[in-house]
Amino acid sequence: MVLCVDAPHMREWIAERGVEPIVVDLVERMERAFTHWMDFERAPRVASHSENGVIELMPTSDGEYYAFKYVNGHPLNPSIGLQTVSGFGVYADVATGYPLMFAEMNLLTALRTAATSAMAARYLARPDSHVLALIGTGSQSEFQTLAMRAIIGIDAVRIWDVDLSAMDKYERNMAGYGIDIYRATSAADAVAGADIVTTCTADKTNATVLTDAMVEPGVHLNAIGGDCPGKTELDAAILPRALIFVEHEPQTRIEGEIQHLPATHAVEALWSVVAGEAPGRTDDAEITLFDSVGFAIEDFVALAYLRDDVTGTRFAGKLDLITSPEDPKDLFSLVSTPTLVRTIR
Amino acid sequence: MVLCVDAPHMREWIAERGVEPIVVDLVERMERAFTHWMDFERAPRVASHSENGVIELMPTSDGEYYAFKYVNGHPLNPSIGLQTVSGFGVYADVATGYPLMFAEMNLLTALRTAATSAMAARYLARPDSHVLALIGTGSQSEFQTLAMRAIIGIDAVRIWDVDLSAMDKYERNMAGYGIDIYRATSAADAVAGADIVTTCTADKTNATVLTDAMVEPGVHLNAIGGDCPGKTELDAAILPRALIFVEHEPQTRIEGEIQHLPATHAVEALWSVVAGEAPGRTDDAEITLFDSVGFAIEDFVALAYLRDDVTGTRFAGKLDLITSPEDPKDLFSLVSTPTLVRTIR
Repeated sequence: MVLCVDAPHMREWIAERGVEPIVVDLVERMERAFTHWMDFERAPRVASHSENGVIELMPTSDGEYYAFKYVNGHPLNPSIGLQTVSGFGVYADVATGYPLMFAEMNLLTALRTAATSAMAARYLARPDSHVLALIGTGSQSEFQTLAMRAIIGIDAVRIWDVDLSAMDKYERNMAGYGIDIYRATSAADAVAGADIVTTCTADKTNATVLTDAMVEPGVHLNAIGGDCPGKTELDAAILPRALIFVEHEPQTRIEGEIQHLPATHAVEALWSVVAGEAPGRTDDAEITLFDSVGFAIEDFVALAYLRDDVTGTRFAGKLDLITSPEDPKDLFSLVSTPTLVRTIR
Repeated sequence: MVLCVDAPHMREWIAERGVEPIVVDLVERMERAFTHWMDFERAPRVASHSENGVIELMPTSDGEYYAFKYVNGHPLNPSIGLQTVSGFGVYADVATGYPLMFAEMNLLTALRTAATSAMAARYLARPDSHVLALIGTGSQSEFQTLAMRAIIGIDAVRIWDVDLSAMDKYERNMAGYGIDIYRATSAADAVAGADIVTTCTADKTNATVLTDAMVEPGVHLNAIGGDCPGKTELDAAILPRALIFVEHEPQTRIEGEIQHLPATHAVEALWSVVAGEAPGRTDDAEITLFDSVGFAIEDFVALAYLRDDVTGTRFAGKLDLITSPEDPKDLFSLVSTPTLVRTIR
């Protein structure tokens, strides 16, 4: 039997524990993992591209545990009532190769992405940052907001989305959280005066969510929506003005905003900053950019935390997905009609 | 909700449908897939190696559906009561990226491997073949036997395993199937007079299960146990004497018996033979070798067949692993405490 945190269990767990407390724990674990970044396997994710989107497998291991996430990205899905991104994760024991846990990973990914964004902002945003601009108020936006509040102390948010109903939804969801929300009339209006700008849009194109003129000195850019070849969010003219921080450079060169830059353009590994081996922001006038595409180690951290937190609780179900013959070499006995114990429930 | 064929459902399905009827259907589907081999994605599997074994992800797609298998190989597992190989598979819709089915894939892999072996033997073994030698009577052995009977008409089996209790188990499981079983006293004794020799051992080493002297003209070798770098079964001296057939050549060069050969040594793609584009066996005196390491397309075929066969039956359970917010952009509403519908069952 394998632990199974299915969608209903995941919802209950997050609702009961709270987004902000989970993010605080996740950032602590994330910092530890980023400090030991080079001890993890860092294979590129395996992508299967099609006309409508992409399906990816994102594996990694720390030598003791192994984890992977299945995740899709299909920007047209909402038009047929499905989510742009869905996913699940598996956490396994390296010593035996057996899976230990299956988990919903749509909600969990929103949490880990928000925690990673907030961790990056801790090192890269100005210490006095308190105004967040959100370009894109889709699935990720509320998680991003609460993570930035929990870790950075954001108390005001300026929002913009080309889909006005997505802004309605954001305002509805964030009512009662004590955050000052300003509904902007354009991306430029949203960005004006913000300390941190998070772009989280979903178009599978080279979009220009932010133009060069919108980006003022001192701002921290948290670009999380561009994460595929040909899928970016920023005006390329912004990039040479910014100090750029990445997760796994070979992957970001292909999938991140920096696909617009020559491969020789210097970028810094976020893990080096977290580990104290490289500086983050050193000056209040710098423009910093976390060119985030998501990396398997972040999912590993989220799954490890989830497992530790739900084991033995009502949030952990069971899944009987792996056969277990009494004699491990006697697989056939499981299907041999004369001896089959009828076990369908 | 996603279809879920868990371990108990898989057992029931196989027991009810029967190994041989399933293999017959699978071989038919497998031949169709091999004929269209070049229409599938053929990425190498993604392996995570550790001291005890390996965990692999094996994805592929035909453009309409996507499938991957998670599979481990840990030869020491039986010493702690676990199986050497365990696994599960996922079948998904390319257009939306959503998973459609989760399935146990330990039993299903045994079936697909047996079907692939039998399909290869149909093209590569002498047409009058009726004696099978099995070196290794572990988990795969009974499935291999029944597949070779269903497809080739094998009626006599000569078995050898260094683990005598594994031979006991095989004889017990195969009693009543009307197959003439000879329990050999050595590998050489098992192989003597056999038309087809299947090696299915599990050591993660360069073993010599068959020596050169044991292999007579006209035999078909079905080598399924060697499937990792440094994990082979045959005396390298056998290889230059044989016509060698492989699944996905780049993978087999790394993982198959041919890792002992220079990369320039010619091998033939099995799919070319199945598609009628290359000859298989052309002469009763030839030694043919199917250097099988397993490929994702075979798992794809098995999952596709399973889904078609179990949909709407009592063999298909449900798994609620993917969140489904009413508004696809409103993921947060699922965990927002005020509106949470308590759904834990």
